[in-house]
Amino acid sequence: MKKINHIGIAVRNIEETLPFYTDTLGLAFRGVDEVESEGVKVAFLSIGESNFELLEPLHEESPIAKFIEKRGEGIHHIALEVDDIHARLEQFKSEGIRMINDQPKQGAHDTQVAFLHPKAANGVLLELCQPKQED
Amino acid sequence: MKKINHIGIAVRNIEETLPFYTDTLGLAFRGVDEVESEGVKVAFLSIGESNFELLEPLHEESPIAKFIEKRGEGIHHIALEVDDIHARLEQFKSEGIRMINDQPKQGAHDTQVAFLHPKAANGVLLELCQPKQED
Repeated sequence: MKKINHIGIAVRNIEETLPFYTDTLGLAFRGVDEVESEGVKVAFLSIGESNFELLEPLHEESPIAKFIEKRGEGIHHIALEVDDIHARLEQFKSEGIRMINDQPKQGAHDTQVAFLHPKAANGVLLELCQPKQED
Repeated sequence: MKKINHIGIAVRNIEETLPFYTDTLGLAFRGVDEVESEGVKVAFLSIGESNFELLEPLHEESPIAKFIEKRGEGIHHIALEVDDIHARLEQFKSEGIRMINDQPKQGAHDTQVAFLHPKAANGVLLELCQPKQED
């Protein structure tokens, strides 16, 4: 694991939340993206080598909408950056680590991502995240 | 804010939790500490420029014991590293940011820490953390 790539935070409204991160905490805003397959709008704010990823549901069927309905706004997941997500998934499979995703799927910014089951990590939802290969 | 100093994770038992972080995730174990004032034993594991801080309650009155009783094991707080915690607290006070601690208190490894109120940050418990000054 190279570093914490980002911490995902479920929020009702990115626009209303941004000023706390930009003005109060003084973090640099890195833009927004939409991940249709997950039903979320995401905003990135950098801090050191990591980012906060604000997650706003696009519709009521979004997993983030359901998370907020059940638990309220707050930390949703932690993404750990890896060089080779396939090798990591093979390793976890051989160790019997419980996964949500057995195969990588596309995340924001053309990353490849896979989630571990929260029961694998003491209630923490961990994401493996392999950045887009630069040409 | 310079970086994410650590992510605090509430666990029932550090010894039982460590192998997932060291063997499965492959993170470097940086030792344990006790913060008597908070009633916690803490274990640090480094990842990039950040750390995971596993928090085990020392007794039933520990805030971490109460957190686990109410919400189960999981992410407890995110600590943001600052150069001058007093200046940050003054800034937050002037902006009307709701704090748990108006003044810094001692954290693990002789850090100075202060917690924001979770209502200040969309349900996220943020800690400001100023490392010990090196001589």
